Amino acid sequence: MVPQWIIEKKRDGRALADDEIGFFIQGYAGGAIPDYQMAALAMAITLKGMSPDETAALTRSMLASGVTLDTSTLRSPRIDKHSTGGIGDKVSLVLAPLAASCGIAVPMIAGRGLGLTGGTIDKLESIPGYRTQLDEAAFLHVLNTCGCSIIRAMNTLVPADNKLYALRDVTGTVPSIPLIVSSILSKKLAARPEGLALDVKWGRGAFMTTRADAEALARALVKTGRRLGLRSAALLTDMNQPLGRAVGNALEVAESVDVLRGNGPADVVALTLELGARMLMLGRVAADRNQALGLLHAKLQSGEAFERLKTMVGLHGGEARALDDPARLPSAAIREPLPARRAGFIQAVDAEAIGRAALLLGAGRERVTDKVDPAAGIAALKKIGEAVAAGETLAILHTNRRDRLEQARALAADAFRITAERVAPPPLITLEIQETTL
Amino acid sequence: MVPQWIIEKKRDGRALADDEIGFFIQGYAGGAIPDYQMAALAMAITLKGMSPDETAALTRSMLASGVTLDTSTLRSPRIDKHSTGGIGDKVSLVLAPLAASCGIAVPMIAGRGLGLTGGTIDKLESIPGYRTQLDEAAFLHVLNTCGCSIIRAMNTLVPADNKLYALRDVTGTVPSIPLIVSSILSKKLAARPEGLALDVKWGRGAFMTTRADAEALARALVKTGRRLGLRSAALLTDMNQPLGRAVGNALEVAESVDVLRGNGPADVVALTLELGARMLMLGRVAADRNQALGLLHAKLQSGEAFERLKTMVGLHGGEARALDDPARLPSAAIREPLPARRAGFIQAVDAEAIGRAALLLGAGRERVTDKVDPAAGIAALKKIGEAVAAGETLAILHTNRRDRLEQARALAADAFRITAERVAPPPLITLEIQETTL
Repeated sequence: MVPQWIIEKKRDGRALADDEIGFFIQGYAGGAIPDYQMAALAMAITLKGMSPDETAALTRSMLASGVTLDTSTLRSPRIDKHSTGGIGDKVSLVLAPLAASCGIAVPMIAGRGLGLTGGTIDKLESIPGYRTQLDEAAFLHVLNTCGCSIIRAMNTLVPADNKLYALRDVTGTVPSIPLIVSSILSKKLAARPEGLALDVKWGRGAFMTTRADAEALARALVKTGRRLGLRSAALLTDMNQPLGRAVGNALEVAESVDVLRGNGPADVVALTLELGARMLMLGRVAADRNQALGLLHAKLQSGEAFERLKTMVGLHGGEARALDDPARLPSAAIREPLPARRAGFIQAVDAEAIGRAALLLGAGRERVTDKVDPAAGIAALKKIGEAVAAGETLAILHTNRRDRLEQARALAADAFRITAERVAPPPLITLEIQETTL
Repeated sequence: MVPQWIIEKKRDGRALADDEIGFFIQGYAGGAIPDYQMAALAMAITLKGMSPDETAALTRSMLASGVTLDTSTLRSPRIDKHSTGGIGDKVSLVLAPLAASCGIAVPMIAGRGLGLTGGTIDKLESIPGYRTQLDEAAFLHVLNTCGCSIIRAMNTLVPADNKLYALRDVTGTVPSIPLIVSSILSKKLAARPEGLALDVKWGRGAFMTTRADAEALARALVKTGRRLGLRSAALLTDMNQPLGRAVGNALEVAESVDVLRGNGPADVVALTLELGARMLMLGRVAADRNQALGLLHAKLQSGEAFERLKTMVGLHGGEARALDDPARLPSAAIREPLPARRAGFIQAVDAEAIGRAALLLGAGRERVTDKVDPAAGIAALKKIGEAVAAGETLAILHTNRRDRLEQARALAADAFRITAERVAPPPLITLEIQETTL
């Protein structure tokens, strides 16, 4: 096989065979195929697409480029969750221990954030002492002990994807559904889950800005998963306003603790329960959604889920006391309330603008090498539909960077739109995609 | 400007601005923009196209990456000719001295062949002593003395194109009209011609296999040329059977001499005269085609054109005597006639198969670093429409490689299709494109 023949085939819109995809990805991961040929193929894939069969072969090749973590000895059903990411999305922190308390094993490999706010790994790292890198034996030990473990991908997992991900970023080949799907699924499959609940977000604070793009991605994820022996279900969720009332790493940990203590914002609770219900059904721990919701609700109310999180944090070397007393989490020197300019009802909260403001305050990174400030972010966010008086606090900015405060405040203030008329909160879940509804 | 934003713009099908194209090509030529970003942009251009304005900007940027040869001091009109290449195409060897003898200056930068048979430079190098690399002063001296000079592009001319040409070859981005046009025109414009006669070939032995693709390329060349201040005219010509009766470097030099002596195959003569007429009209040496053809015919018959070729060869250090006596040209040890399997009329001669056979015999190169055998090739080719008796010679294979003979003979034999019915020769020129007919 010759790399350029494979590029030409995709350029001409033809489907690549499994062995052609395998040859190319193996060659790329090993260095025999240079970046420029991978870049040309990635652009051809971006513009000509790939069938679910091709996407499955691509995912398999990515996965074959590295090691996998053998979780098959775990006794519980292994079900993971993935979100395409959004502003204020801390659901994994709540959901992993909650699902574990219901009898699911959750072997979760998560990422750092690049972009507006931190990823799940950044959030966990705001808990003093939490180690996000474990070897396979330690990962299995945590999973056997408390049913869930959230770790950072090591370099030996899916090296082809690590390499391609960086290349896509600088070659205009990020928004390609087959490339996104194979990147997500290969990283998830490295921990060998049997099922995967997917949260595919759309809107101003999401990677996919339109519902149509998000739906196409969700369908491709579920279809490709099926070809890889992975049971999955996807929820399409609205990401036009931030999820919950907190954006920023330690602030989101504190909000997650609120949820696990039976409080917390309604949208975070609802989304956690719905995604949890999919995990329980995929893991055949519950027969239907109602049974699953009942079980999840009970584990949340009883405090068992919260205990799981503390156990997991402790097993990862983290200070579990910081969860009982969130004052032990990193906190910012400056806390600046943002007053409403007028009275009325919140009509919109631009998630992207809130994300940009949080980034300025220190909560995100502009470059891979940037450090995040765990204490920085925005809390006490008002939600769409809520009434406010003139001067009432819309949000509180947390930061250690006084130099960035003015710019962040202006961005955050512009994110809120207030109207005189009453506004109904938008539905959070806009579509569900299951294997049977494809 | 950021390279990936430019890639993304083209990926999304939007037109690039002149300064964006300039920034990218300058960065690529200088090494600031890596191969992988150029490869991604090249694939996006291949799949999304470029307008004539964008193609002109791309050509200008390529040209600006290197030096140009200042031919503006020449007194005669400077008109060049370019062919997209084909099997047996030796027209430049005849046309450059013929046009020069009619008062045109022909500052021709030509290439080596990569693919089935040699390029113009390979053909000239089969003349003992001919130097294809001259510096600017020597090139101008030859042009001032005899009106034409054919040289090989030095590395300082259009370095961006040299780099991109090699990259396209291995990234599936060869068949892109804007990339082909900018590559052709930037190399031609480096010698600053005022006009350009184009021979755009289509068929089995050409780069463009269909008439439609060739027509699109011809139109893009003429349109882009106009935007660059270059007058041009293009002929679309049939390249399903080889041009002339000889394929191979020294064999084609000998056939060129035949034409310049007033003999030679009718198709080579006709095409040379038609392209010459376009050069004379572009150079305003002739008012119309008939006047031009009359002048060209006279210079061919009088031997003046042949004298020009000998002068040019001499000025390039070549052995002009070898043209008077083609026995002095390199000749092959093995000359193997190919007999007709049956009597009838030649219905088809597959140019690609003849090209492949000639390559096997030693006339072409598979890799850039391969050497061609100047003596190798195929001569005395029968043409479509000619009658043959059973066992009559269809062609004579010339080679020094006995080990390749059998394979080449089988290929060459299969190239000929013989039928019982009389066959009319196909028209050679199928369309003409001028600025006024765009």
